[in-house]
Amino acid sequence: MAISAKMKDFVANGSMIRKMFEEGTRLKAIYGADKVFDFSLGNPNVPPPDIFKATLKAVVEADDPDLHSYMPNAGLPATRAAIAARLAAEQKVPVQAKHIVVTCGAAGALNIVFKVLLEPGDEVLVSAPYFVEYGFIADNHGGKLKVAPTKSDFSLDVEALEAAMGPRTKIVLVNTPNNPTGKIYSAGSLEALAAAMKKAGSRYGRTIYLVSDEPYRKLAYDGAFVASPLASCPDSIVVTSYSKELSLPGERIGFAAVNPEADDLDALMGALALANRILGFVNAPSLMQKVIVRLIDQEGRDKGIPACVDVSIYQRKRDLLAAGLKAAGYEFFLPEGAFYLFPKIPIVDDNAFLDLLKAENILVVSGAGFGAPGYFRIAYCVEDKVIQGAMPGFARAMEKAKKLGK
Amino acid sequence: MAISAKMKDFVANGSMIRKMFEEGTRLKAIYGADKVFDFSLGNPNVPPPDIFKATLKAVVEADDPDLHSYMPNAGLPATRAAIAARLAAEQKVPVQAKHIVVTCGAAGALNIVFKVLLEPGDEVLVSAPYFVEYGFIADNHGGKLKVAPTKSDFSLDVEALEAAMGPRTKIVLVNTPNNPTGKIYSAGSLEALAAAMKKAGSRYGRTIYLVSDEPYRKLAYDGAFVASPLASCPDSIVVTSYSKELSLPGERIGFAAVNPEADDLDALMGALALANRILGFVNAPSLMQKVIVRLIDQEGRDKGIPACVDVSIYQRKRDLLAAGLKAAGYEFFLPEGAFYLFPKIPIVDDNAFLDLLKAENILVVSGAGFGAPGYFRIAYCVEDKVIQGAMPGFARAMEKAKKLGK
Repeated sequence: MAISAKMKDFVANGSMIRKMFEEGTRLKAIYGADKVFDFSLGNPNVPPPDIFKATLKAVVEADDPDLHSYMPNAGLPATRAAIAARLAAEQKVPVQAKHIVVTCGAAGALNIVFKVLLEPGDEVLVSAPYFVEYGFIADNHGGKLKVAPTKSDFSLDVEALEAAMGPRTKIVLVNTPNNPTGKIYSAGSLEALAAAMKKAGSRYGRTIYLVSDEPYRKLAYDGAFVASPLASCPDSIVVTSYSKELSLPGERIGFAAVNPEADDLDALMGALALANRILGFVNAPSLMQKVIVRLIDQEGRDKGIPACVDVSIYQRKRDLLAAGLKAAGYEFFLPEGAFYLFPKIPIVDDNAFLDLLKAENILVVSGAGFGAPGYFRIAYCVEDKVIQGAMPGFARAMEKAKKLGK
Repeated sequence: MAISAKMKDFVANGSMIRKMFEEGTRLKAIYGADKVFDFSLGNPNVPPPDIFKATLKAVVEADDPDLHSYMPNAGLPATRAAIAARLAAEQKVPVQAKHIVVTCGAAGALNIVFKVLLEPGDEVLVSAPYFVEYGFIADNHGGKLKVAPTKSDFSLDVEALEAAMGPRTKIVLVNTPNNPTGKIYSAGSLEALAAAMKKAGSRYGRTIYLVSDEPYRKLAYDGAFVASPLASCPDSIVVTSYSKELSLPGERIGFAAVNPEADDLDALMGALALANRILGFVNAPSLMQKVIVRLIDQEGRDKGIPACVDVSIYQRKRDLLAAGLKAAGYEFFLPEGAFYLFPKIPIVDDNAFLDLLKAENILVVSGAGFGAPGYFRIAYCVEDKVIQGAMPGFARAMEKAKKLGK
């Protein structure tokens, strides 16, 4: 056998999602792409903002001799400074350039943070439903995912998280706005979580870090404010990416920001830069780093980044989808951010219901993959006509499910 | 303590190089940048070729709606196909798109290959001198570096490698043209190595993979051909990047190419794509993937990529440096490729000699970091005036060393 036993397992288990892609390709070949309603992937369909495109062209035209050069592993000093200034203004925390590591997206940031913090056997505590990737990333660095429930409306259940903290807890990981539920965690719940972590840390004689994965921060609806643990928890790290707010998922650009009051700060920053190097990222792509700093500087570093995709488009899609699903009898909480909706499966057999949807050429993702069986995820970052076209199928599947009974 | 014990160690040991950077900054502040001769970093100083710059502008101007989108984790199908066609034409091996994973540079490629192949405790066998990063990357994935010597002229010592193969050997790693020696390994030595690996693999009942790290392939002097194990070893994987041949080290774009005859091929390719995802690379940066395919297509996929930095510039720098060092009495082998020269230290105390160079404001890297004490590395990817300006200092350091005696 060539590949490691663990990777062989991962490939076998990971193949469910791949099979769904293959199923989508197969269905599209048979029925035509416009007759298949693919809600499986969180691939932003709103184009990058015009100011991003203009800035990219300007950076490329500028003939900067260092446009593609090596740089410090933590990123270009100017980019780190601009990101820090923006974050400080936005979240009212005195973050400086030295607290930022520019990364290959949020996934790159999570990998370096986990690499640096975890001892073998340490636990990463997360609330279900959670993004499937977290388990793999914890495992990459010798850690284990420990899962606590959320409340019935998918809000943080701080008591459940507190009960799950133990002597091996090193990281508590939150994702807000949440993939797959669209929930935004309240400032109050994050403060309560920080207090519970501090108590547990004292009990077990170790620092527990709150890591907040926030790539959907700018995709918040109805003017909702996305609270961040940076403000309430000294031992906190924000990881994020520009993939969603600028619709750049293929470019792999994001950052990790460490709270200026974090324990063992200098060692932590040095180790994050080293991890960025030795895990093979080396540095986040230099051209995109130059674009980000120029985007931020266009409005002033204290004003936040001016560029963002048009969130009202996603909000309209959410409303369109929610109205249709509600009329068809689905139960769900209205997403407050991100571009996922996470309805209940109306019968006990999840796969039987997903098969009913597939028979309507509707592709979604089972909640089981997010640690939440009994639900399914609809990624509505798709064209309106896909949402509209799928509605009769969603309704028919519900009718058939009702006939099957509970 | 916040960070893991291992990372704390790594940061402490990694700090030697960081201290050298700091030393460089300090010296430049005191004496002026033009009075400090910094040969420490392998940062290409030849600009990217004009055709690259033009292609980048064309790709950005084309307003491709999918320019920054998600894609399969192994890369854009068109980019994989173009890279495969180029490699097949160049190395006479029938590599196809499905054998390619586009990666975040060679460091990203090495990380996914090691992640996929290594069981905990498996060994990666390498010849010294070797690139310092290899030890970290093996450790990232539970592996251990095992080091065999090269011959006295830095060519492959296949007998020594064969003697070092054991029941835990999973990977033999070669780097040609070599960093830090500039040696190109001969086709004959790679064939002998492949045969030795096959014998050891049969003895221990496992497949041993030959991984060839080739980012300096296009930087070969005097028309030298760089042989590749792809042609002689079925269980072989090439990892490389465009960092050096296109002078793009900040952009993180490269690939892994698996031999079409490799053992367990389909599982291997699936696992490499999954590793690219879960290690947080997700995919190599999309804009650069689009540039690479367009560059290759400009001359035709069977002709190889037309674009490369002007290698004659590096060759001239090599000759300039070699002539000066020879006149000053240094012993070394003339580099056949890459942009490093690796002279002998003329006295027994390495650090004492490096201090003599530092007293001349000359910054180089100790060979000990490459598993080769008694030598030092000069990265000559610098302006000619740095080489010329350093020559009197190199000569004086040699005179002083001679007075110190052996």
